[in-house]
Amino acid sequence: MEIDDELEYQLGEMTRKTHEMDIPVMIIIEGPPASGKSRLSNALYMALDSKYTDFVATRPAREIDLRYPFMQRFWNHLPKEGDINIHFRSWYAQYIEYKEAGITENIAVDYKDICNDMENFEKMLHNNGYEILKFYVNTSEEVRQRHLEKLKENPILKWKAEEFEENLELYNYEEEMQDFIGKDQLIPWTEIDFEHKNDAINTLFSTIIEKLEKRIEKEDTTPVQRIVSDFTRYFETELFTFDFEEESLKKPEYKEMLPDLQLRMREIQFQLYRHKIPLVLVYEGMDAAGKGGNIKRTRERLDPTGYTVNAVSAPTDMELAHHYLWRFATSIPRSGHIGFFDRSWYGRVLVERVEGFASQKEWSQAYEEINDFERSLYNSGAIILKFFLSLDKDEQLKRFEKREENIEKQWKITSEDWRNREKWEQYLEASEDMIKKTDTDYAPWHIIPGNDKRYARIEVLKRIISTYEKVLNNE
Amino acid sequence: MEIDDELEYQLGEMTRKTHEMDIPVMIIIEGPPASGKSRLSNALYMALDSKYTDFVATRPAREIDLRYPFMQRFWNHLPKEGDINIHFRSWYAQYIEYKEAGITENIAVDYKDICNDMENFEKMLHNNGYEILKFYVNTSEEVRQRHLEKLKENPILKWKAEEFEENLELYNYEEEMQDFIGKDQLIPWTEIDFEHKNDAINTLFSTIIEKLEKRIEKEDTTPVQRIVSDFTRYFETELFTFDFEEESLKKPEYKEMLPDLQLRMREIQFQLYRHKIPLVLVYEGMDAAGKGGNIKRTRERLDPTGYTVNAVSAPTDMELAHHYLWRFATSIPRSGHIGFFDRSWYGRVLVERVEGFASQKEWSQAYEEINDFERSLYNSGAIILKFFLSLDKDEQLKRFEKREENIEKQWKITSEDWRNREKWEQYLEASEDMIKKTDTDYAPWHIIPGNDKRYARIEVLKRIISTYEKVLNNE
Repeated sequence: MEIDDELEYQLGEMTRKTHEMDIPVMIIIEGPPASGKSRLSNALYMALDSKYTDFVATRPAREIDLRYPFMQRFWNHLPKEGDINIHFRSWYAQYIEYKEAGITENIAVDYKDICNDMENFEKMLHNNGYEILKFYVNTSEEVRQRHLEKLKENPILKWKAEEFEENLELYNYEEEMQDFIGKDQLIPWTEIDFEHKNDAINTLFSTIIEKLEKRIEKEDTTPVQRIVSDFTRYFETELFTFDFEEESLKKPEYKEMLPDLQLRMREIQFQLYRHKIPLVLVYEGMDAAGKGGNIKRTRERLDPTGYTVNAVSAPTDMELAHHYLWRFATSIPRSGHIGFFDRSWYGRVLVERVEGFASQKEWSQAYEEINDFERSLYNSGAIILKFFLSLDKDEQLKRFEKREENIEKQWKITSEDWRNREKWEQYLEASEDMIKKTDTDYAPWHIIPGNDKRYARIEVLKRIISTYEKVLNNE
Repeated sequence: MEIDDELEYQLGEMTRKTHEMDIPVMIIIEGPPASGKSRLSNALYMALDSKYTDFVATRPAREIDLRYPFMQRFWNHLPKEGDINIHFRSWYAQYIEYKEAGITENIAVDYKDICNDMENFEKMLHNNGYEILKFYVNTSEEVRQRHLEKLKENPILKWKAEEFEENLELYNYEEEMQDFIGKDQLIPWTEIDFEHKNDAINTLFSTIIEKLEKRIEKEDTTPVQRIVSDFTRYFETELFTFDFEEESLKKPEYKEMLPDLQLRMREIQFQLYRHKIPLVLVYEGMDAAGKGGNIKRTRERLDPTGYTVNAVSAPTDMELAHHYLWRFATSIPRSGHIGFFDRSWYGRVLVERVEGFASQKEWSQAYEEINDFERSLYNSGAIILKFFLSLDKDEQLKRFEKREENIEKQWKITSEDWRNREKWEQYLEASEDMIKKTDTDYAPWHIIPGNDKRYARIEVLKRIISTYEKVLNNE
């Protein structure tokens, strides 16, 4: 059978539409060596508009890949709205390779947990409008042998055939893939037989056309309702109430304690480095609660080549065109490094909820997505601590006023801060919901009384140190 | 001496200003091991706003780094407008390390040429509004020994001292750096003595304040004049005139030649891969000259895991906030891979010149910048071919009309194409200027008659093949 030009045209039409409609598309092509998946993928790559198509080949892992969470490479290559990725080999091939090679550098758990990470990743993307299409290319042993023989005839290409044969021996790829394909997955596989190249291409193209057509038809083009709702009328919480008198530290006491804790923190940085453990530190809290100054005391004696501070500002166009976790997932510290997050992915369920930037559906599903995301960091060996710096409303007012009076601090206060303050109760309710729904064993929240800055700084340092020591002693 | 709080506040003020004025700032900190540059850099990192400050540590090269041009890591980390980079060790440290370790993977030339690449890089950034500040931190042998002894006292930090000592022995870092500092460079070095930490910090901060203040004062805030000028009234050129009758191919002839050339192209892809040579293919030409179809015939039998097609569309906000070469420099194929560029960095001197998107100063200096950039690719071992597909004005009209008539091709033609056509002579003049000014030994232009698509496709394939074979035989 000939390649059908009409199909190529339709595929072009359909993908121009998904591009215009800002639908991100991920086409996954798996298949054993010499199955024909290269030729198939090349035909697909050529048929799509290079302006918004990326060909992402998953190669055997390099040392640097093993220093990040398992899904990191795919986070890094996530298509933005309207773009198309062809994933030539995907997290499935990577999973099989890691598992069979017994890789444990960035796997702190059972491989089953990694399967969960993969499923959660697909579910999360699916629930956020990503269109994922999964293809498994295979052919008979006979046809594959024919491909290999043909390669071997050409002295320049012969080594490629040998590489194929080596890989065939190395991994139980086909068996493992059949397991995945047999499972009841949220996004099912389409199997393609490569006996005849043109038939295979036609099947691939027509399947993509059909699936994208369905997606486009059911695409809800009514603008998302971004109505701020779901807040209690008179919200009260005990969660952030402290006896602030008690939770305080005198200056001399503070000055005495700080240097030792900072030195210990410095030692921990080097120990993390040697043990190749990533440390993720998340800071949330009310405006003027002292997050920046708190982080500053923790980083004061650290080696700057081993940590990064990610301070969140309004997202760029590029970030808005991706899944909301993308900009954070791509900033996760590599093994042995420390990543500070001065505000974080929790913006989705705080400011985005309170201001109505995210729809109710979006922020409601975010709790689970965030738990899954942090779980995937934990699965890669990360230690995660989340701090909520809490101060009371009067103390905030005092600090706001002090900032306005002090010429050196005026830049720190804007009208936005005052506007946020008016929504104090709503932020409180969103914060309580957040803490209740995302406080997990592997990524616990620490609510820190923040009326006394010195107390809060010492407390945070102590928590990091004791958490680290607990992890180290259990190992 | 104490750290001066007033200085820290001024530094904050000054960098808030450069941020608001969209000035990108690169602060380079070099210095031998145990000189105190970590502590100095950390103080600086802490004093700047994390929202727009990046700490970029240049680590010993990994295998993947050696598969890209020497400057690639710095292209990848180029700050965008208004952002600040602290480069902890920079291209200088990398240069010394590569040279002393005898690294040749991505160095196809004498190391002197790499020095030129470094100088050109700085000059290019400087001429495009980047503020580069270079610091060399050092201290007496005695103080350094004291640092090392102190580290060694702590069992947890001891290995760091040993690493320092090892590095001190490994490279002639100080001597090489003194050579650079003694040279008459466009951007001079500021030396900082680290005998006393706080003095050193105060010197660093006050130097940065002073230099940024000067820069802000002289910053020209009048909007750049983007007047389209500098075109000949009645431009005529012989460059793109061919006997199109002669430069044509009958279909049977074409059908016979194509498969062999495509197979040879496939072999070459594998040979490039084995020899780890990157191949850069640039396609420019009039609208409807057949670039996409031409590229398609060249890639038809290639392995899609070894090439990428970069089709240029309007720059994103993120791209506009960087140097114009940034989006291309970060898409250069790694060694052994092929990068197709369907339109390219030459947009700066073509569409940006003709449409007035770049000022006369900007596009005028771009020829040299582009030559330097291509030279740096060549220096890393790349083979570069640039094709200009030329068709005459009548043939373009025919193709435009055909596209409008054919429902399957209508998407290819927009009102913009018709508008561009009205500026035919200006594009021709800009193209001739471009070719005359950027036709180099290491990255030559190939003007390909494009009225006959078949002829053009065969011709491009032949040129790639013969260039490759020439390179291979000279080695």
